[in-house]
Amino acid sequence: MIADKMLDKIDEMQNPCVVGLDPVIEKVPKHLLKGDSFEDVADAFRKFNFAIIDSVADIIPIVKPQIAFYEKYGVPGLKAFKDIVDYAHSKGMIVIEDGKRNDIATTAQAYADGHLGVVQTELGKRPSLNVDLLTVNGYLGSDGLTPFASVCKEFGKGVFILVKTSNPSSGELQDRLIDITPEEESKLVSDGIPIKDHKTTVYNLMAIQVNKYAEQDIGKRGYSSIGAVVGATYPSQAEELRKIMPKSIFLVPGYGAQGGKSKDLVNCFNKDGYGAVVNSSREIIYAYQKTDDPLKFAEASRAAAQAMIKDIRGALKESGKYPANWKD
Amino acid sequence: MIADKMLDKIDEMQNPCVVGLDPVIEKVPKHLLKGDSFEDVADAFRKFNFAIIDSVADIIPIVKPQIAFYEKYGVPGLKAFKDIVDYAHSKGMIVIEDGKRNDIATTAQAYADGHLGVVQTELGKRPSLNVDLLTVNGYLGSDGLTPFASVCKEFGKGVFILVKTSNPSSGELQDRLIDITPEEESKLVSDGIPIKDHKTTVYNLMAIQVNKYAEQDIGKRGYSSIGAVVGATYPSQAEELRKIMPKSIFLVPGYGAQGGKSKDLVNCFNKDGYGAVVNSSREIIYAYQKTDDPLKFAEASRAAAQAMIKDIRGALKESGKYPANWKD
Repeated sequence: MIADKMLDKIDEMQNPCVVGLDPVIEKVPKHLLKGDSFEDVADAFRKFNFAIIDSVADIIPIVKPQIAFYEKYGVPGLKAFKDIVDYAHSKGMIVIEDGKRNDIATTAQAYADGHLGVVQTELGKRPSLNVDLLTVNGYLGSDGLTPFASVCKEFGKGVFILVKTSNPSSGELQDRLIDITPEEESKLVSDGIPIKDHKTTVYNLMAIQVNKYAEQDIGKRGYSSIGAVVGATYPSQAEELRKIMPKSIFLVPGYGAQGGKSKDLVNCFNKDGYGAVVNSSREIIYAYQKTDDPLKFAEASRAAAQAMIKDIRGALKESGKYPANWKD
Repeated sequence: MIADKMLDKIDEMQNPCVVGLDPVIEKVPKHLLKGDSFEDVADAFRKFNFAIIDSVADIIPIVKPQIAFYEKYGVPGLKAFKDIVDYAHSKGMIVIEDGKRNDIATTAQAYADGHLGVVQTELGKRPSLNVDLLTVNGYLGSDGLTPFASVCKEFGKGVFILVKTSNPSSGELQDRLIDITPEEESKLVSDGIPIKDHKTTVYNLMAIQVNKYAEQDIGKRGYSSIGAVVGATYPSQAEELRKIMPKSIFLVPGYGAQGGKSKDLVNCFNKDGYGAVVNSSREIIYAYQKTDDPLKFAEASRAAAQAMIKDIRGALKESGKYPANWKD
């Protein structure tokens, strides 16, 4: 199951860093572009990402392609996405698809089957996009989450459900105070979350929901395949969320380009030094822009990844949340 | 702009019905399947949908392909999706993509550009998936909605933002009572919504947000390109939402197979007889299953579409919400 696999890979690499593969044509080195068709763009994305994967596969455990940047170019774009997923797998990396998919019932099932599980053909079932984990939006309620959770359990895959996102306006809905049931209140009180007037935030309510699913799919290493998205930009919220969802792995966006600092995001980790994976996209993949050599973009990405690893490991060590079996 | 175009098309057809194109291999007539590759499945989906489009294009204004069922089959699936969008356009139909896309900032921009607007290539910008309207999930706040609204305005396209969805568990989050600001309270009070203890539901709060965007993009016919998803299964909620978002067109799922009745969904319409489009998927496209002739699936779909049109037009007439310029 993926939570165990992810933790093993994190131990192998001795860091919980994720490189976000978010290609945009304006920033991809010009020498990779051979023409102006969608196929040419997709081909440039393929070369760009393959080279970055090659440059970090021995030091980074996980990549996170954001599918929006690929499906934007239609069929050729999705083909590049799939090739990049397969290439990362061939290099032993774990692949999180950032797709924020959501729907209900048979439609949620279709997303779960297509992205994580297997799809029906006339002669039987086989995998399709076959990523390891997928980000999911829970606005529609449990009708939208149960099909994903079932597929995760059956195929050893995982999801990260949006709880508290890293963007400035995430609070417009997510930070609002909302009436809760006595059952929810007692869960929060037992987690040590202060409650006033029988209310909590929307993100805490979503966390309670995530935790219910998480508890039903826990691996040998004590973590669940049902995780949560919790932004690096909101450290105090992360501290509460860590308590509400003790078994969930957090996917932490917002580090680097979005302003989240390593000292802030340690709140996303448990005391054992696990429980979160930290993503950086632009600061890694476009690191070459700060050099004078676009031909060596992959080397620049590797150097940026090394700097991130050092920063995150340092912050974990300083906070006392450093895994016991990692080297100093 | 799409709200005007959609209303003109609705007038031309004298009904606001949407046929949902949600193909699943288990239900597509067997004679369309030529093999078991993903290409074969995609080809069956293409033939199935083309035939249904042919059979209803002179009576139905709008189709709504659900992209989950296509992208499930990866690259061949997305190719079929794109071909179906283009084919529906060639027959003069309006195309709503049900994709429930959502993200923030440049990523939301990538979705908006790829699905609704234009994408950058080396020599310039051109359309990619090029649907007319897209469903969008607003959990992430205005960082996730503004890029879509901007693209809609620039390219004359539209979105339907999830407000109150049709599924049984939609209330788990959407019906919760949430604290609101004095400004929000005064908006709701002036809309005639009863407020107690400075709280409203999450769906009403989302509706206030939708309305803000809607007011900034209103066409000649008085409706906005920024619409809302409001389930046919929740008539009393629809009545309130109609007041909060007077200029938004509602995409109404849940009619037919999900149990929503025509007399319930008239609450989604304004007094002028406009303001909503009503979707039915399974009851139309799989109507042949109630006959003994899978070869005539398209004819069965046409008959089911005619029955739906009659039902919806009848309910509008009975409720007094019948457009003044429609025939009896």
